[in-house]
Amino acid sequence: MTGFSDLGYARVDTDRESRQGLPEVVYGPGKQPAEISGIVTELLDRSTGPVLVTRVEPDVAAQVSVPGGSYDETARLLVWRPAAPGSFRVCVATAGTSDWPVAAEAEAVASAIGLSTTVVRDVGVAGIHRLLAARDELDRADAVIVVAGMEGALASAVGGLVACPVIAVPTSTGYGAAMEGVTALLAMLTSCAAGLTVVNIDSGFSAAMAAHRLTAVASR
Amino acid sequence: MTGFSDLGYARVDTDRESRQGLPEVVYGPGKQPAEISGIVTELLDRSTGPVLVTRVEPDVAAQVSVPGGSYDETARLLVWRPAAPGSFRVCVATAGTSDWPVAAEAEAVASAIGLSTTVVRDVGVAGIHRLLAARDELDRADAVIVVAGMEGALASAVGGLVACPVIAVPTSTGYGAAMEGVTALLAMLTSCAAGLTVVNIDSGFSAAMAAHRLTAVASR
Amino acid sequence: MTGFSDLGYARVDTDRESRQGLPEVVYGPGKQPAEISGIVTELLDRSTGPVLVTRVEPDVAAQVSVPGGSYDETARLLVWRPAAPGSFRVCVATAGTSDWPVAAEAEAVASAIGLSTTVVRDVGVAGIHRLLAARDELDRADAVIVVAGMEGALASAVGGLVACPVIAVPTSTGYGAAMEGVTALLAMLTSCAAGLTVVNIDSGFSAAMAAHRLTAVASR
Amino acid sequence: MTGFSDLGYARVDTDRESRQGLPEVVYGPGKQPAEISGIVTELLDRSTGPVLVTRVEPDVAAQVSVPGGSYDETARLLVWRPAAPGSFRVCVATAGTSDWPVAAEAEAVASAIGLSTTVVRDVGVAGIHRLLAARDELDRADAVIVVAGMEGALASAVGGLVACPVIAVPTSTGYGAAMEGVTALLAMLTSCAAGLTVVNIDSGFSAAMAAHRLTAVASR
Amino acid sequence: MTGFSDLGYARVDTDRESRQGLPEVVYGPGKQPAEISGIVTELLDRSTGPVLVTRVEPDVAAQVSVPGGSYDETARLLVWRPAAPGSFRVCVATAGTSDWPVAAEAEAVASAIGLSTTVVRDVGVAGIHRLLAARDELDRADAVIVVAGMEGALASAVGGLVACPVIAVPTSTGYGAAMEGVTALLAMLTSCAAGLTVVNIDSGFSAAMAAHRLTAVASR
Amino acid sequence: MTGFSDLGYARVDTDRESRQGLPEVVYGPGKQPAEISGIVTELLDRSTGPVLVTRVEPDVAAQVSVPGGSYDETARLLVWRPAAPGSFRVCVATAGTSDWPVAAEAEAVASAIGLSTTVVRDVGVAGIHRLLAARDELDRADAVIVVAGMEGALASAVGGLVACPVIAVPTSTGYGAAMEGVTALLAMLTSCAAGLTVVNIDSGFSAAMAAHRLTAVASR
Amino acid sequence: MTGFSDLGYARVDTDRESRQGLPEVVYGPGKQPAEISGIVTELLDRSTGPVLVTRVEPDVAAQVSVPGGSYDETARLLVWRPAAPGSFRVCVATAGTSDWPVAAEAEAVASAIGLSTTVVRDVGVAGIHRLLAARDELDRADAVIVVAGMEGALASAVGGLVACPVIAVPTSTGYGAAMEGVTALLAMLTSCAAGLTVVNIDSGFSAAMAAHRLTAVASR
Amino acid sequence: MTGFSDLGYARVDTDRESRQGLPEVVYGPGKQPAEISGIVTELLDRSTGPVLVTRVEPDVAAQVSVPGGSYDETARLLVWRPAAPGSFRVCVATAGTSDWPVAAEAEAVASAIGLSTTVVRDVGVAGIHRLLAARDELDRADAVIVVAGMEGALASAVGGLVACPVIAVPTSTGYGAAMEGVTALLAMLTSCAAGLTVVNIDSGFSAAMAAHRLTAVASR
Repeated sequence: MTGFSDLGYARVDTDRESRQGLPEVVYGPGKQPAEISGIVTELLDRSTGPVLVTRVEPDVAAQVSVPGGSYDETARLLVWRPAAPGSFRVCVATAGTSDWPVAAEAEAVASAIGLSTTVVRDVGVAGIHRLLAARDELDRADAVIVVAGMEGALASAVGGLVACPVIAVPTSTGYGAAMEGVTALLAMLTSCAAGLTVVNIDSGFSAAMAAHRLTAVASR
Repeated sequence: MTGFSDLGYARVDTDRESRQGLPEVVYGPGKQPAEISGIVTELLDRSTGPVLVTRVEPDVAAQVSVPGGSYDETARLLVWRPAAPGSFRVCVATAGTSDWPVAAEAEAVASAIGLSTTVVRDVGVAGIHRLLAARDELDRADAVIVVAGMEGALASAVGGLVACPVIAVPTSTGYGAAMEGVTALLAMLTSCAAGLTVVNIDSGFSAAMAAHRLTAVASR
Repeated sequence: MTGFSDLGYARVDTDRESRQGLPEVVYGPGKQPAEISGIVTELLDRSTGPVLVTRVEPDVAAQVSVPGGSYDETARLLVWRPAAPGSFRVCVATAGTSDWPVAAEAEAVASAIGLSTTVVRDVGVAGIHRLLAARDELDRADAVIVVAGMEGALASAVGGLVACPVIAVPTSTGYGAAMEGVTALLAMLTSCAAGLTVVNIDSGFSAAMAAHRLTAVASR
Repeated sequence: MTGFSDLGYARVDTDRESRQGLPEVVYGPGKQPAEISGIVTELLDRSTGPVLVTRVEPDVAAQVSVPGGSYDETARLLVWRPAAPGSFRVCVATAGTSDWPVAAEAEAVASAIGLSTTVVRDVGVAGIHRLLAARDELDRADAVIVVAGMEGALASAVGGLVACPVIAVPTSTGYGAAMEGVTALLAMLTSCAAGLTVVNIDSGFSAAMAAHRLTAVASR
Repeated sequence: MTGFSDLGYARVDTDRESRQGLPEVVYGPGKQPAEISGIVTELLDRSTGPVLVTRVEPDVAAQVSVPGGSYDETARLLVWRPAAPGSFRVCVATAGTSDWPVAAEAEAVASAIGLSTTVVRDVGVAGIHRLLAARDELDRADAVIVVAGMEGALASAVGGLVACPVIAVPTSTGYGAAMEGVTALLAMLTSCAAGLTVVNIDSGFSAAMAAHRLTAVASR
Repeated sequence: MTGFSDLGYARVDTDRESRQGLPEVVYGPGKQPAEISGIVTELLDRSTGPVLVTRVEPDVAAQVSVPGGSYDETARLLVWRPAAPGSFRVCVATAGTSDWPVAAEAEAVASAIGLSTTVVRDVGVAGIHRLLAARDELDRADAVIVVAGMEGALASAVGGLVACPVIAVPTSTGYGAAMEGVTALLAMLTSCAAGLTVVNIDSGFSAAMAAHRLTAVASR
Repeated sequence: MTGFSDLGYARVDTDRESRQGLPEVVYGPGKQPAEISGIVTELLDRSTGPVLVTRVEPDVAAQVSVPGGSYDETARLLVWRPAAPGSFRVCVATAGTSDWPVAAEAEAVASAIGLSTTVVRDVGVAGIHRLLAARDELDRADAVIVVAGMEGALASAVGGLVACPVIAVPTSTGYGAAMEGVTALLAMLTSCAAGLTVVNIDSGFSAAMAAHRLTAVASR
Repeated sequence: MTGFSDLGYARVDTDRESRQGLPEVVYGPGKQPAEISGIVTELLDRSTGPVLVTRVEPDVAAQVSVPGGSYDETARLLVWRPAAPGSFRVCVATAGTSDWPVAAEAEAVASAIGLSTTVVRDVGVAGIHRLLAARDELDRADAVIVVAGMEGALASAVGGLVACPVIAVPTSTGYGAAMEGVTALLAMLTSCAAGLTVVNIDSGFSAAMAAHRLTAVASR
């Protein structure tokens, strides 16, 4: 009993579900459709929870042949056995419409793994009244995922308003000095609002998984 | 009723405690001892919780004249009215002995704001058995703060073992390609262990405040 | 009639006042006290307006022997023949107390060259109500200089509130991912609030000079 | 009365015109044609001034179905209800022919929002007499927008000649050490000509909006 | 007798085999198929060992007309006269499935130049038990090539387990803060496991050649 | 008599030839074929020397309609009225075959403006005897242009051998840590061989023009 | 039997010697003298091989009170129980005199752990005959450690001459574009000489430890 | 006859003078005074030309005991046997007074190795008439060394005026976005004035040595 399945091209971590409450999530890029199918099949066999593949382009998704899955093109996400919505509420807030694809990944992954999600879109600080109007929605959340590109200032503004955990996701929205998301990343890391945490650029997936870890706190 | 006190040199956010459960924490660098004393006095008057000043050098601390405070030289932290230890357990894990000052700040701030803390030191991945031996301590925690410099690999290793929230703090330990902590920062952001979150380089303070936000989840 | 005075160690641009409405401002670093004295003397002789030397350390200032000057230690500024306050109103807003030295340079230079200045300190976005409370002061200004380090989000927030020119000054306040002010600089350049302009890191001087150019618009 | 219209995919800031004298300008990238159409329609209904969408590729522009708009392919700009030319004169100066697309955006946006524009092309410092010959045109302007890539030296040269506000736009023209416009950006920020201000790389839009803020000064 | 053949478009180092035990390996990018054919023919004539061309795209490989070669599409490698497997055992370990193309180049080059190779795939530290299960395979190797992207932590974990030489190859797997492989590169260079060595990003070739140099030690 | 021709889209510097001995060279990127044709026609009319357009892609070159020109596809160069070869001898040395396109631009521009050129290809330091064999050719040159990517070490080696001016051109050959030519650039700037000079990455053009300036020294 | 000793401030990896043939080497920076003494004492008790502490400043070394140690000030190294010289020969080659402190660390660590060392100093490529004259010494070595700053070209030159493993150590020698050793690091990683390996900037220690791993190959 | 003297701590390149017309120049940093003395003595014995040591701090210079030398504190240069001024004229032009120390090194090294030097100080482009007034001096030079920090625009302006070789030296003058001279370096490399060449940041020495190579052209 090794805790993994060796498929040759992959060692599937079959111990992950017992260790962390979720089966391993498959990272799509660089994998052949047949490899994805094989890993998904193994995970469906060896675990009971939701099985996800992230960052899958439509043409690849079309070639993955495991029955029962659904594909979300905006989020580029494949899901089998999605979890029922639980009591933990995550609010995904975006600074601009252009940040939506990243927010969509956060929202789709969070939903698939059993979190209850709401979305507040387009509340960038250039019109701060739009954010203040959303304060009730923010206050009802158990955690807020803030998705913002350019200068990423929304994270600081939200962080100053709410008391709950804030997970900031920098996006590569913007050009020039936006530096493909590095500017938003650095800005979020140095926020004057205390206690924000940050995940990788454009990684809606990481934010959703960080939110999932919070359920361990909620249920302790 | 504005929600702040205007001291001229500072606008103290007296609304912070009701909004986020903790009085404003004062950032020490660039402030005169008299300014620190004034802000602290105002916070003590206008709130009921712990009052902290971070990143205070010993010579400055010695000139801050508000009674009742205590100074932790390793953590460079001034504290008035520390909170009693609560039920939320934070484990601070360090990769090496040289990361201790940053971990000390995380531990001291967390303690001062009412978290229960334990420390696991020197469990870097070059001798992975040291980390595996600490697994029970990690599993008992409600959240883990991982403090590591150089390549920051401890965050990935811990993130793969525990199910709870992991807050990674990169440190500027190391030289050359360690790039003053940037390497550890980037490594933690791109960890293969899903759902880690990251705070600023050397910011034990940020990690502790992020842990504090988790108590909102614990008590919902 | 060459439009400059050749002192050997410097070519003083004596044409500057007629061209741009102000005598040349002397950049202090790397100059000997005797050189500063020589240049200042020449400028006082060959122009009629205020004469300034920036970034002068106290020990250097003490060795500059031209009568009639005054030294502002916080702003590190030497001034002769300061202009009377004019009708153009500049509001200098700072995100935190630690940004004050840079703001002080902006305020002192602006005052010395004839702008009317007001200061709004410590209105960072972590407590956005502090900024909103200052809205009247901001609205009364003909231009706002925003001085902020860390993630520099104050520039976006102010830029979204006021209609007048906003000159953003990133500061090197902060550590780690603040990157000595580069993070604030990039964030300000990519602000979601349209029409902000930005000057060099820590350059209160540049902001004041940019404000001076605005008087050409005011008086056209 | 919230000050914004919630379209689901966007919160249109309908308060912007009263706050800053111009309706919100729509950032095109990442938005679906139907979303652009919806936002534009809302802005036309809820405001009276010019409505603009920036950075729109021709194929997207062709799918935006709101009547009355015009499309400028070089500037990649969609405009409805352009403002009549006002008395404020902006001169757009370019260092080289290759900088034209960015200058075109600056010129088109400025025109659409009611500024009077002139253009001086191809006056790079490698043949400084070309710039000196344009001095009268520069002197007649209320503000100069300098558009330059490579080493961006034109900004310094113009900044030394005129007394009015100078807004420098670095472009990504050049290769290798031009670093996609970062070199020009940094060079403009460190110009030896005092009081220049800088906007994001390739952002003719930002420069025009900064010029619009100057009209608040002109009309005070 | 110059030690090289001057083909006009290339100076083939015909002395390399006597100097270093292997003919020159040809770097494919930027070379015309006819040039590759010419260089390969010359090397086959003037040496006795294996002849390799790296980083060859399939369409180029199809146009190289020298008989006797074989092409490995995953490794993008052309080989003539591969060496028989020797006694030196190299284990190629990968962190994830997406790192396989780089590992494939390392494995294919190593095999072609006479090393005995084994492969351990997908043993990233997020599931450390997968790596510990491979310990016997690692211990049997004379050298380990670790191929990892993202945060590259596998190199540290392997480096702490084995006593033999470890050659770390960072890959460009990952996005955002992975910085096209720079993060893994820096992380491997600053590993807390002592005595690791590192080669260029994505360079399976360099790792194999470094392993070849180890055979000089084995046979001394 | 202004010293330039204003074509609207360009100000052609017609004074350049008298000032610097060569007509202005046209930078191709970002210009329309009709613009190129117009500028070239003007230069042919207003000067007597060679007229060049650099960095022209084949499809653009085909649309430039000015008679008498020739196009070099490798060098991406259009030339009218090439100069006869003069007595100044430039040797272009390349580290590898992949550096040839950049070297070709240097060679073609140098030839077109009247320098006598020789080429020494593929003398990288990994087989230093290949360079030493070329020493006579290097010694016969009045100046050496060294073209090298990757680590750029050829510049140091040549710089240590010859006494004449060495102009180093870093190329973007290589991958990963080659950083698109930045590594070679920095390496050449910090060469232990004294008195090397460096031009922009991939700029064979700049090297040739720098060599042309040397003819002013040769003919003084 | 845990394989480590928990001293509170450190977990000493007492299993290291059996795993990798050498006791853990102590990294000095950030440790108190008493902590160093405690760790060293524990290592002396629990292992039989040499015990080393690296990067120890003289004032700290003077406070470490464990008998039997010796201190090398140039190498900043503390050593107890140095190993007798073995049969494995390492040649340390330096590009310039200024690289000596780093080379000294490599040489001192290598000697202390039982390698036989020779040194070839000051053979930079600006005078390539100095290196060629040292060829016999290089050829006699089982491995070469190349220590070079600035452009680091010595690594390529040595790598092209010898067949044995080459471990390149970039140093922070040089200024400006040397970028504190980053230039040499990148240059060594992209060397045209195949099969070089690289360690961290200024890390003579890492190079010596990498050489030690080679003895596992030599003795297999 | 090896062409070098092996002093143990250094291999003095005694062949340099015959190869390149000048004895080796000693790089001071990191060398002990006794080592400098030894190398200088050897060079004086084994060559006939000027002997120089660069970047020597005053306290080190005072300990170098070889008779006949002189020390220039501004240039930090030690010289023995300076050459008589030759016919080659180098003009050193500086953008600002603060660039003088770098220019002083260029001027002092150039003088010591036999070039005739003139200096034009403080001709930055913010007052372009100061540069135009110096045009005759520039035109009389055989080569111009341009020394400038901040945005380095002087190099472009000079490069557009003169026909002779221009060697640009970026300096670390400036702060913030000046990036310790990197901004000026990149700007000079991407100058719109064709045929400029560039040396390392703050390296007046390199510029002077590059000028010396030009004398090989002048005397051919």
